[in-house]
Amino acid sequence: MSLYSEIVEQPGRIKSLLASQKKTVEQIAAEIRKRDIQYVFLAARGTSDNAGRYANYLLGAMNGLPLALATPSLFTYYKQPPKLKNALVIGVSQSGQSPDIVSVLAEGRRQSCLTLAITNEPNSPLTQSADFLLDIHAGREKAVAATKTYTTELMSIAMLSTALSENKKHWEDLQKAAAWMKEVLKQNDFIEQAAQRYRYMDQTIVLGRGFNYATAFEWALKLKELAYVKAEPYSSADFQHGPIAMVDSGFPILAIAPKGRVFDSMFQMLKRLCRDFSAELVVISNDKKALALAQLPLSIPVDVPEWLSPLVSILPAQLFAYHLTVAKGYNTEHPRSIYKVTETK
Amino acid sequence: MSLYSEIVEQPGRIKSLLASQKKTVEQIAAEIRKRDIQYVFLAARGTSDNAGRYANYLLGAMNGLPLALATPSLFTYYKQPPKLKNALVIGVSQSGQSPDIVSVLAEGRRQSCLTLAITNEPNSPLTQSADFLLDIHAGREKAVAATKTYTTELMSIAMLSTALSENKKHWEDLQKAAAWMKEVLKQNDFIEQAAQRYRYMDQTIVLGRGFNYATAFEWALKLKELAYVKAEPYSSADFQHGPIAMVDSGFPILAIAPKGRVFDSMFQMLKRLCRDFSAELVVISNDKKALALAQLPLSIPVDVPEWLSPLVSILPAQLFAYHLTVAKGYNTEHPRSIYKVTETK
Repeated sequence: MSLYSEIVEQPGRIKSLLASQKKTVEQIAAEIRKRDIQYVFLAARGTSDNAGRYANYLLGAMNGLPLALATPSLFTYYKQPPKLKNALVIGVSQSGQSPDIVSVLAEGRRQSCLTLAITNEPNSPLTQSADFLLDIHAGREKAVAATKTYTTELMSIAMLSTALSENKKHWEDLQKAAAWMKEVLKQNDFIEQAAQRYRYMDQTIVLGRGFNYATAFEWALKLKELAYVKAEPYSSADFQHGPIAMVDSGFPILAIAPKGRVFDSMFQMLKRLCRDFSAELVVISNDKKALALAQLPLSIPVDVPEWLSPLVSILPAQLFAYHLTVAKGYNTEHPRSIYKVTETK
Repeated sequence: MSLYSEIVEQPGRIKSLLASQKKTVEQIAAEIRKRDIQYVFLAARGTSDNAGRYANYLLGAMNGLPLALATPSLFTYYKQPPKLKNALVIGVSQSGQSPDIVSVLAEGRRQSCLTLAITNEPNSPLTQSADFLLDIHAGREKAVAATKTYTTELMSIAMLSTALSENKKHWEDLQKAAAWMKEVLKQNDFIEQAAQRYRYMDQTIVLGRGFNYATAFEWALKLKELAYVKAEPYSSADFQHGPIAMVDSGFPILAIAPKGRVFDSMFQMLKRLCRDFSAELVVISNDKKALALAQLPLSIPVDVPEWLSPLVSILPAQLFAYHLTVAKGYNTEHPRSIYKVTETK
């Protein structure tokens, strides 16, 4: 049962990542400061792309850095890569193998950009194409569905942001992350029971906003990969621009709504879904009002700061996807039709 | 029946847009050339965001401009906008009303960036926050689901790209677009009949890649808004990184696969879905091999160039969504729960 044990070992992995890579991250930050970096150009696929979504909000809000998600086919099939002047080019990949992600970093280097590989494989082709390596130190991930490589990618990005801002409070928050994660994992038995209710759920919507837009995408991806649930992620804003038309009574909506700047907007949406649509709600939050709206409330510690909440809020989501997969009788280790390393061009 | 007539009037709108805005677009291009623009920062929601996805590929491939899709909540809720030095800031909005899109343009102006509004409402707040206006000249759009404002937004972006590259062949292609679109609309009666087969389809996946990644998103959005089908868009590459696990025998997959640089990758994926998964395929293409794999082949003219194919390939997709909505007995003019102008922050 690699998947379950990999979920449970995450607090320990986060702790050792923080201890072992702090100096490396500070060296990378020093190099970034030396250059005239005007934006970040980030290439990733699947789970790592969701870590990139977190970077989009975090580096924007904390470090003033706009972020463009790369469109790898421009580098591979079209062979018409854009001009990357003054960009910091980042590739994020657990395996460091996917040729399209490697080609974006190689092109960044060709154009004399500063390049950074965030990966679990220090000896991968991705690392060889990069000026700097941020080793996520997750240990070997055996389950096909990524869990600990996602949270260690998030942590790596959070450390990079903190090194850039030299924000002491943020370094302290990072020290507390492992304990918050441990606390959340105590809900395992409760989530195992609660997941039974969703045995026959075959489709759902996952809502998140701001920093937790990434969490919505990653929760949906786990549900698709493992439990074969058609789960579609949305920001609560985009959801109102059309897709809300799909919702009818009893439709299951999953949401990540911790306290913070976007809480009110998420809470108003959840109230509307509850009152006007009679939707079924599963809510991850540390706010009592939001949890009270849910048929299934999943709580995270009250003192988790919003900027770091994605690292903690994905844990109950992973446990929910895991136990739902077991309840549905599917294989948690080797989902059908997908492989650990997917080599796309 | 505004929606149907708005679909049908698209070739005429495209033609008049090209005639009336060519000079404006050339003025904007001249101003962009004068500045040291290093990337594009684009804000949009819903259908306009899908036009932004086209801009991402087109401006990247043809004009060497990387593009970052804005995360509006950083400007509104978080009040921590990134530093936009040397960015061209573009807002795309049919109504020009949504406060979050307006706030991105206003911040761009505050930071002395060049700002451009692409909108159907010359007197909107969006226009007032911009240095330049590209009026999409779609005429009033009455149906809640956007069709002609999508294709005129695509055309505006295609004209801007062509003015920037001063590519004569591309100007000629643009002149032919209206005729190609007219040709495709002749399939209306065929699509009306064919849509019956999908009366009880309640979920689907839409695949597109490269320039037609945008078409996949827009087709999925029309199906969600109008026919309440849970339709999820993917690039064929991202689809392999997990979500393909959901597909079982008979599962309906819609795909946009015109001839061009990414055709082979799309074709391989379609063959695999047909052979290994026994999926039901609806394919929009101008390649006979790809059309032959489909239960429902929807053809576009054989000489449409790949870079401009999104403008043509969305038409059979719109007609399919329209006729499916009629077949399901839903309201084509006023879908439940959504409104023409959605004001999100």
